[in-house]
Amino acid sequence: MIYFNNDYCEGCHEKILEALVKTNLIQTPGYGEDDICASAAGKIQALCGREDVAVHFLVGGTQTNQTVISAALRPHQGALCAVSGHIACHETGAIEATGHKVLTVPSEDGKITARQVRQVVLAHRADPSFEHTVQPKLVYISNPSELGTLYTLEELENLSATCHELGLYLFLDGARLGYGLASRGNDVTLPDLARLCDVFYIGGTKVGALFGEAVVITNPTLKEDFRYLIKRHGGMLAKGRLLGIQFDTLMTDNLYVSIAAHAVHLADRIRETLDKCGVPYLVPGVTNQIFPILPDAVLEELGKTYVFCEQERVDGTHRAIRFCTSWGTLEENVQALCDDLRILLYPVNLQPVHPNV
Amino acid sequence: MIYFNNDYCEGCHEKILEALVKTNLIQTPGYGEDDICASAAGKIQALCGREDVAVHFLVGGTQTNQTVISAALRPHQGALCAVSGHIACHETGAIEATGHKVLTVPSEDGKITARQVRQVVLAHRADPSFEHTVQPKLVYISNPSELGTLYTLEELENLSATCHELGLYLFLDGARLGYGLASRGNDVTLPDLARLCDVFYIGGTKVGALFGEAVVITNPTLKEDFRYLIKRHGGMLAKGRLLGIQFDTLMTDNLYVSIAAHAVHLADRIRETLDKCGVPYLVPGVTNQIFPILPDAVLEELGKTYVFCEQERVDGTHRAIRFCTSWGTLEENVQALCDDLRILLYPVNLQPVHPNV
Amino acid sequence: MIYFNNDYCEGCHEKILEALVKTNLIQTPGYGEDDICASAAGKIQALCGREDVAVHFLVGGTQTNQTVISAALRPHQGALCAVSGHIACHETGAIEATGHKVLTVPSEDGKITARQVRQVVLAHRADPSFEHTVQPKLVYISNPSELGTLYTLEELENLSATCHELGLYLFLDGARLGYGLASRGNDVTLPDLARLCDVFYIGGTKVGALFGEAVVITNPTLKEDFRYLIKRHGGMLAKGRLLGIQFDTLMTDNLYVSIAAHAVHLADRIRETLDKCGVPYLVPGVTNQIFPILPDAVLEELGKTYVFCEQERVDGTHRAIRFCTSWGTLEENVQALCDDLRILLYPVNLQPVHPNV
Amino acid sequence: MIYFNNDYCEGCHEKILEALVKTNLIQTPGYGEDDICASAAGKIQALCGREDVAVHFLVGGTQTNQTVISAALRPHQGALCAVSGHIACHETGAIEATGHKVLTVPSEDGKITARQVRQVVLAHRADPSFEHTVQPKLVYISNPSELGTLYTLEELENLSATCHELGLYLFLDGARLGYGLASRGNDVTLPDLARLCDVFYIGGTKVGALFGEAVVITNPTLKEDFRYLIKRHGGMLAKGRLLGIQFDTLMTDNLYVSIAAHAVHLADRIRETLDKCGVPYLVPGVTNQIFPILPDAVLEELGKTYVFCEQERVDGTHRAIRFCTSWGTLEENVQALCDDLRILLYPVNLQPVHPNV
Repeated sequence: MIYFNNDYCEGCHEKILEALVKTNLIQTPGYGEDDICASAAGKIQALCGREDVAVHFLVGGTQTNQTVISAALRPHQGALCAVSGHIACHETGAIEATGHKVLTVPSEDGKITARQVRQVVLAHRADPSFEHTVQPKLVYISNPSELGTLYTLEELENLSATCHELGLYLFLDGARLGYGLASRGNDVTLPDLARLCDVFYIGGTKVGALFGEAVVITNPTLKEDFRYLIKRHGGMLAKGRLLGIQFDTLMTDNLYVSIAAHAVHLADRIRETLDKCGVPYLVPGVTNQIFPILPDAVLEELGKTYVFCEQERVDGTHRAIRFCTSWGTLEENVQALCDDLRILLYPVNLQPVHPNV
Repeated sequence: MIYFNNDYCEGCHEKILEALVKTNLIQTPGYGEDDICASAAGKIQALCGREDVAVHFLVGGTQTNQTVISAALRPHQGALCAVSGHIACHETGAIEATGHKVLTVPSEDGKITARQVRQVVLAHRADPSFEHTVQPKLVYISNPSELGTLYTLEELENLSATCHELGLYLFLDGARLGYGLASRGNDVTLPDLARLCDVFYIGGTKVGALFGEAVVITNPTLKEDFRYLIKRHGGMLAKGRLLGIQFDTLMTDNLYVSIAAHAVHLADRIRETLDKCGVPYLVPGVTNQIFPILPDAVLEELGKTYVFCEQERVDGTHRAIRFCTSWGTLEENVQALCDDLRILLYPVNLQPVHPNV
Repeated sequence: MIYFNNDYCEGCHEKILEALVKTNLIQTPGYGEDDICASAAGKIQALCGREDVAVHFLVGGTQTNQTVISAALRPHQGALCAVSGHIACHETGAIEATGHKVLTVPSEDGKITARQVRQVVLAHRADPSFEHTVQPKLVYISNPSELGTLYTLEELENLSATCHELGLYLFLDGARLGYGLASRGNDVTLPDLARLCDVFYIGGTKVGALFGEAVVITNPTLKEDFRYLIKRHGGMLAKGRLLGIQFDTLMTDNLYVSIAAHAVHLADRIRETLDKCGVPYLVPGVTNQIFPILPDAVLEELGKTYVFCEQERVDGTHRAIRFCTSWGTLEENVQALCDDLRILLYPVNLQPVHPNV
Repeated sequence: MIYFNNDYCEGCHEKILEALVKTNLIQTPGYGEDDICASAAGKIQALCGREDVAVHFLVGGTQTNQTVISAALRPHQGALCAVSGHIACHETGAIEATGHKVLTVPSEDGKITARQVRQVVLAHRADPSFEHTVQPKLVYISNPSELGTLYTLEELENLSATCHELGLYLFLDGARLGYGLASRGNDVTLPDLARLCDVFYIGGTKVGALFGEAVVITNPTLKEDFRYLIKRHGGMLAKGRLLGIQFDTLMTDNLYVSIAAHAVHLADRIRETLDKCGVPYLVPGVTNQIFPILPDAVLEELGKTYVFCEQERVDGTHRAIRFCTSWGTLEENVQALCDDLRILLYPVNLQPVHPNV
């Protein structure tokens, strides 16, 4: 089987493996207090254009979301996000486990707007029984979103301005940030994120590392005692250097973005094929995630060779699925998929799809 | 500097690194649902002599303790352990983070007795205001303990029988289990643990892996929905196979115990040197941890070359410290330490130490 | 000002006050372990037609919901309810404070259906990444609902059967249960609730008591250690007898239902007036809560004399509000309100309202 | 039976009952936003000599401790208290339920010292693995303590100065504050508490009210959003006015202290009798709690007429018990107890008790 179901089917980029092998027997202090972690953090600070940001390395995304949100909120406060936000629907209540409600707003494309944030917050404050409801205090966004969409710089500027005007934190989940940075049309840079977000993370797990997420904290309030929070949530890796080694490698010579560009380039090729076949999308996108709507019969056939993610049923005979490419996707596998799609979709095009989305 | 402060100063055993390199580009499902994890789990089941135990792989010890205890207890119940228990004093409240009190009993050597468990539980039940206090429901022990001591099989049998008679779970933290299994005089085996504990874990982080702990659940009640709990606590690794690869390697050809035996052998050599110099111990031990009581002047000198752990001040001129050896400790470094100890301690022996312990 | 905004504007029914005065100097054990609590519990058991149900008295509704749900769920499980459910939107995250997610389903009238429950649960179980989402385990319903609607016996039978078939608990919040029992057309009795629910509560705070909710637990699993849970959530009243005295009074000579009937009767009179004036409702109802949609101008005028609850804006010139009657509402105040409504609404009727609901 | 086991065996002081009857049918807003609560808060501010303190009314002590501590701490922080502190041993983990560890220090008399606080905090900060342990951030003391002892003004001044120097909050649990204020030798006033504590509460439940604790917050940081926290912990009483009515009555014409003085006076009479009989105490005291050490045979006899609290076994033939008087204790019952003690203890005095305390 060829896996297109996600971007964490393989191990890691070979340069990371080399670095692990090379450093294996060096003795270092534990818990991320070693020189390699310091070096990796320094490179991230440099890429963000700010030496004053705090950088912490954690193992995985859910753990990172849980730790950051728990560090930021008082008990009666909640995190605002899109209904499709990872913290809202794919973390088994990890945020609620820290005592906080996830407040959702509708979203078709995985993104939320400054206007939505303002509405929710002002409605909360105007409510005469406001103390009987959770206080919105942090806005969680994913970029790229869970639906593969990207925020424009203008959208982020608006969200940031609104959050700060209203006294909310802006937290950006960059589990797939590399793919966003490498996508056509993206106009958001790391220095932008460091300027606009109170805290964000640069995802490693899905972008070439074995595991690991680099949290960048810009807001001084959120920096305080953050390492305690990491430990309390079981996220302080004994051999913390493993995270340092991986991010030090990824942040050297633009490796992080260049390997993501490989994935996006291959995703573009799949999109071209789908476009030519007239396949509609659940949500259009430019990153390494693709959400085509395909006939059940085609999916059944495809499923014999390829693994993909089920997204949702669209109508009685069509489903939206997800293809993911990654830093490790082989060009030959993409070629095979495109060929098979063309063959399978040829007759379908004669009967156009009308999805109800 | 030469590190003897802990057993997680290096990367991992070379065979693990080889396995990571070899499998790196293989595509697998995520979250530990791959064949390698299944193979590793099967080997652990075989070593435990029971196919019916559930095996789950987590990243680190605090996370494992938090997840297991949270899975086992209802909200009003607490975990009983020694005052020196890792969950009581070195996890930044990770257990309390899940809403549970850690109930401690006194201990000089890091172990607790069946008699202590019985006393606490019966006192709780006899208390007329028992509903106003936390109900003891789980006994947490570490083997080897945080002070390097080992439970005998008889002690474990008694603890287990008492727990089960009283309706408590017995949970054994085996973060350093390998070193225990490899120690002189140890009479506890994996099948014993599988027979006597409701749940225990086989530590990888401190015994040759990059990271990872293998949880073995024998009690059917605790097996239910355990993967949900892992996810909720941020412990479900996307590339779960990394854990499988490491444990599959460690559990092949007795690697886990044989590399631990190397560490224990080197620790024995340090102990021999200390014994010859008449150095007393905070707690005597047979595993890879050594807790000698040394004069401040000697420690100052030693500290110029070696890194060790401060344990506690014993009197105005002596401190207890901890030396750790590991699977990766070099024989030449142990030799150097022993030589230096002999030189530094020679004059000291003329003025015997009388620690107040 | 005359208060129609809720059903807890006054103190308590005079018979309760008499009982408090009469028992004031009697000495009793604390924490609800007194004879009066036992008597009250016995009366509730008798009214439920089952001696085997456990009865516990708590102070308020949010506390009760929090305690019951925390007692019922394991950490990874969630409570399913209508979007308008009290636990979902009016408890400042009290359920999340216990670590549990509230899973909401759409509802126009404050009720949910067996079909909705089945859909959510089956969708969860069919999801290949089910362990990455919260497991639905308890269904929370309010009867009367937050929108003043009532479940029919058939609806409850269906919900109960579905919950039990799927292994979920059914929990009914009866904060206003008395008003439901006293409403025209209600066909649900206390024995029905004791037969169909795993746990429910009989609300006192809103039905004539100073405060207090009587939790009735029918499912043996949920009975275990419930008093620990009450204490842990700060709900164990030192002078627990106060709750016993109140419920003992309310459960004597049908007082609970007869004072509720007074409120419903007066609400019916308001509804008759509104009906005659052709006023539409946000949701039609038969209990002590009324949700008319009225022109802003009328509401401004009414607001000079009466206090009512703002429910929601319906269109540019109309809002839905809530009138509540209670066991203590004076007939003369209802008369005054009806008169004023007739006067204010007379001209409005010439221009019929077409709310977009 | 005559109850001397605690100070909450009866209902409430008659003036409170009168006030409840008198206000019963007045309509007010809910949730403590009524004029009576405002009046009560104003009186407390006046008695504290500070208009800038925030006053909130809660129902019970555990709820209050839970709410205050949850409001004050970030997730990785803990509350420091005596081993005998109510939050440490008599609240079924209610503090842990909010995610916080209770850090205990030894205490013979129920009190802790500034020196102990300093030691714990400095030891934490000096610990190289400080991030692996809970950060002490709040000091919880009870005055009177759980063992009936009182802090002197000097002790409180020292504690307060130390807490503030080290950046900790000082929280005083005044569940029995009235009895302390009314005791001989007490030199601590409400203005002192308002000056020295960041937050404290004036207990009503044990000093003449049906229920209720008045939280006084002096530190502006702790004032923020406190009502949200009350609601989140299930502590916001719908008919909040009940708390206002009670405290308004207690704070009028010195009622609170004068009814406490009654209890202390009667306790003094019991102490005189015990002293004359040569009875030793577990802890000496001056408030309404008495902890005599008595022979088992005497206690068996006493137990036929009087209810008292078991405190602890002192030796093979003696136990320490607790007698409590209250605002409602009848003089004739105290007389009877004293008479019986004299008769029962007469022969005992010939064989002096030497408890091992």
